[in-house]
Amino acid sequence: MASEFSIIEKYFKPISVINSTNVGIGDDGAVISLPKNKQLVIVTDTSICGVHFPKKTPPFAIGWKSLAVNLSDLAAMGADPAFFSLALSLPAELNNEQWLTAFSTGIKTLADKYKVCLVGGDTTKSTVLSITITAHGWVSENTAILRSTAKAGNLIFVSGNIGDGGGGLKGIESCLDKLNTPEPRVKLGLNLLGLATSAIDISDGLLSDLKHILKASKVSARINYDVLPMSVSIKNYIQQTEQYCFPLTCGDDYELCFTIAQEKLAEITAIEKLTAVSLTCIGEVVTGESANIDITSNNAVIQNKLDSCKFAGFKHFF
Amino acid sequence: MASEFSIIEKYFKPISVINSTNVGIGDDGAVISLPKNKQLVIVTDTSICGVHFPKKTPPFAIGWKSLAVNLSDLAAMGADPAFFSLALSLPAELNNEQWLTAFSTGIKTLADKYKVCLVGGDTTKSTVLSITITAHGWVSENTAILRSTAKAGNLIFVSGNIGDGGGGLKGIESCLDKLNTPEPRVKLGLNLLGLATSAIDISDGLLSDLKHILKASKVSARINYDVLPMSVSIKNYIQQTEQYCFPLTCGDDYELCFTIAQEKLAEITAIEKLTAVSLTCIGEVVTGESANIDITSNNAVIQNKLDSCKFAGFKHFF
Repeated sequence: MASEFSIIEKYFKPISVINSTNVGIGDDGAVISLPKNKQLVIVTDTSICGVHFPKKTPPFAIGWKSLAVNLSDLAAMGADPAFFSLALSLPAELNNEQWLTAFSTGIKTLADKYKVCLVGGDTTKSTVLSITITAHGWVSENTAILRSTAKAGNLIFVSGNIGDGGGGLKGIESCLDKLNTPEPRVKLGLNLLGLATSAIDISDGLLSDLKHILKASKVSARINYDVLPMSVSIKNYIQQTEQYCFPLTCGDDYELCFTIAQEKLAEITAIEKLTAVSLTCIGEVVTGESANIDITSNNAVIQNKLDSCKFAGFKHFF
Repeated sequence: MASEFSIIEKYFKPISVINSTNVGIGDDGAVISLPKNKQLVIVTDTSICGVHFPKKTPPFAIGWKSLAVNLSDLAAMGADPAFFSLALSLPAELNNEQWLTAFSTGIKTLADKYKVCLVGGDTTKSTVLSITITAHGWVSENTAILRSTAKAGNLIFVSGNIGDGGGGLKGIESCLDKLNTPEPRVKLGLNLLGLATSAIDISDGLLSDLKHILKASKVSARINYDVLPMSVSIKNYIQQTEQYCFPLTCGDDYELCFTIAQEKLAEITAIEKLTAVSLTCIGEVVTGESANIDITSNNAVIQNKLDSCKFAGFKHFF
């Protein structure tokens, strides 16, 4: 079994590539030089075995996803990801070369892709595997995309498909990659700067997360169920189970939901090409401070059919 | 039982006092404006129930100490603490008003004292109570106190007393406050800027942490056992148990160990007055890349008497 210091030296220092003006792993803290005319964006997400991912999740995927969920939050702010700290609580039975190599490779593969570096953290023993990452990015001053600035009349978009993350949890084979190694929409977030009036990632489920935007912006929304983007697998799952709200509430999708002014609609096609991510207009923001969401199908409100939704989303306590 | 969002709203938003140019709790991430000519210092420490603090620790102390251990790391860098994120993994049996109030008050009391604010985080359920804080501070460019810059001939100092943290763990009544609500040496760290050639906090034990400085700086040290600062309780404990190395290795002391050039010795008295913290010269840095520590008593090396030390320190895995 490796000591805390040898784990850091062997598995985590290689993820820490930092330029000479900065100090990274190996001191009490990291020292980071600041770019001019930028603001710092900070996000934190904890992933616990058995709560946020199933026990059988491969260690590569645990590493990848622990970082991906944080980069997804940075993307929702329009931030350019830069560096992160990693707090790893490790049960004794996972303190072995095989597990640590796969886990750290999962983090490193995604970190390299988005050029973010590990600057520090803490490795401790625990009875439960738990990973907390605090990720940091930069935005130009006063450009961060917030939740509180959606306006009535804005169009509501969602990237990619919804429901695949939940489909993976249900064991649908074709959804497993989306569940285990989701792609954070970093490039999309950067391209939404100056365009989106609000954004959020839909990790807790589309309805639950859209509601955060509506509450913060003091508006309501109308969503067209018929145009919701779903994979064939999820459409089949709904047909078989009649769980119509599944993709709206299942969570574990790392797509962005965002709003834009109607007159900006023409810009969407260019962003789709640039990012290679499909963007679907699923409805519009309407007046009404109650943060209500009406869901329509064939131009009629179908709330009844969706009663079981109850805007549940993923919640940790009840 | 409260939901994640109501816990954040009720207990953690009050710790989040942030000025109008910044965005704090309630969006995907926090947005922080950057001061000019500064660098950002980032530290991360995880505290797990049963590993880093005993199960019977009062929740006020758990909150206080979780933040204190992070501020102590910032102090060791000479950083001015500014803000932090909090990842709380909470077992269901602690999700109640009494526990959450005491825990959040512990954090808030210390946060208010050092004017640091909570900018975000993540609250999740778990079977094990675990708190990860990532704390951020500012230093003027290229002034952070590192571990790697101690020089042979430098004097080695330690603040306060050593051994009280470990004494608290042994149940010594007069040491419990030092164990449960340690005072991070923030003001001392700030006053060491431009003076100390290296610094570290001795949370893992004086010998273990001093060794980190020696390794990083490629030097060795000679320590005078006879002058080590200890409380009467710890002196009595040593006399009764003959565990001479206890205060050197017990850990859980949140004092600073630092080095200064000999010609700067006169400045120490002024800093003691300014910070109201006693500073003791316990030895000196000597040449030798092996990071060896000789411990002397009555001018003789007494390694034999201290054999049981083995520079153990607090380690998570063996």
